[in-house]
Amino acid sequence: MKKNEKRSVGISVAVDLLVFTVEQERLKVLLIERAEEPFAGMLALPGVAVRSDEALDDAAARGILEETGLEDIYFEQLYSFGKVDRDPRNRVVSVAYMALVPQKDLHFHAGQRTSAAELVDVGQLLDSDTGLAFDHKDIISLGRERLKGKVEYTTIAFHLVDEEFTLPQLQRVYEILLGKSLYKANFRKKVMPLIEETEHSTSGDAHRPSKLYRLAEV
Amino acid sequence: MKKNEKRSVGISVAVDLLVFTVEQERLKVLLIERAEEPFAGMLALPGVAVRSDEALDDAAARGILEETGLEDIYFEQLYSFGKVDRDPRNRVVSVAYMALVPQKDLHFHAGQRTSAAELVDVGQLLDSDTGLAFDHKDIISLGRERLKGKVEYTTIAFHLVDEEFTLPQLQRVYEILLGKSLYKANFRKKVMPLIEETEHSTSGDAHRPSKLYRLAEV
Repeated sequence: MKKNEKRSVGISVAVDLLVFTVEQERLKVLLIERAEEPFAGMLALPGVAVRSDEALDDAAARGILEETGLEDIYFEQLYSFGKVDRDPRNRVVSVAYMALVPQKDLHFHAGQRTSAAELVDVGQLLDSDTGLAFDHKDIISLGRERLKGKVEYTTIAFHLVDEEFTLPQLQRVYEILLGKSLYKANFRKKVMPLIEETEHSTSGDAHRPSKLYRLAEV
Repeated sequence: MKKNEKRSVGISVAVDLLVFTVEQERLKVLLIERAEEPFAGMLALPGVAVRSDEALDDAAARGILEETGLEDIYFEQLYSFGKVDRDPRNRVVSVAYMALVPQKDLHFHAGQRTSAAELVDVGQLLDSDTGLAFDHKDIISLGRERLKGKVEYTTIAFHLVDEEFTLPQLQRVYEILLGKSLYKANFRKKVMPLIEETEHSTSGDAHRPSKLYRLAEV
């Protein structure tokens, strides 16, 4: 291969963002309604073009900030989508990232490019015939799968609860991500080594106050 | 964001390839010695520039074919590396793929670009101070980690043995990837549901012939 062949020509690089949260007992993803062609009026993931002086991770952080106003939230790279015709305008390789945020921290605002931003139920969306712009339905599907896989062997689910949480709150998030009910005793046996008690409890209301926990320092 | 901002300028996209095999009881990766600057004389992963009319997966398959002469071997996308200064010549986002191949199938040939191709012991390389070109040592490190993780919950290790294998051969590959010895009984309990007996045995030589197995159809 000659040296100048190393340079690919005519490929743009974008970062597309899966911002996941749990709202009303459902896993939801932030989508925007596209204001312009292609796919005008359809729902799409938010995304940004990667600047030539910007690392992929920095582009992802910038996009999350632009769409949600949030900094310092958890995100990780998911996968790069590189089919030739995935964008009808020009060749775009999309590096997809997923971000996880507790619902109460999410006060997203619609960007100028888009007419609306909304939280959409992931399960309902993937089970329906609703089309999304580009290959964004595939990206969401892979994101949900990755999330479900990582719940089993990482502490990724903790990014979807508040910093201090009750055990039932944490269990519900695990159940929502895994798509199944868990036995309370088994669940607690699994997570107890990962967490520690705080000095706080939920205020009683009609119920007995519940102890609040947090993720333990490693 | 305006429409024309969607297009990133001045970023090239490459695919870098981790071709893993097990040789002489060690996990090895295919490296090339760079013939030209930058990093002339240093070891690097083989890679190709992605063509504008070529999907990422197709570029990976092409690169594997060019470097090894092999088609139809197992590969998967690993991660995209996107730091700004990872290539001193120009901005290159590298989408890393890993391929797994039984050693006996690997008859690689040095490409024109490179003065040599060789199999390098992954553990020795990562434990040493030996520098590699670009961020390729980071890519290898992540690839080994992914491989180790996936051995536990997938059948990925089967891509590193011949289609028909003895149980001790398979166990050795698992042990090499996991970096630890396994109890024979535990190992067999784990893999037996995944495999089926063939009608073949190893030829006896000095030893008793051993039954040959293969990965069961799902």
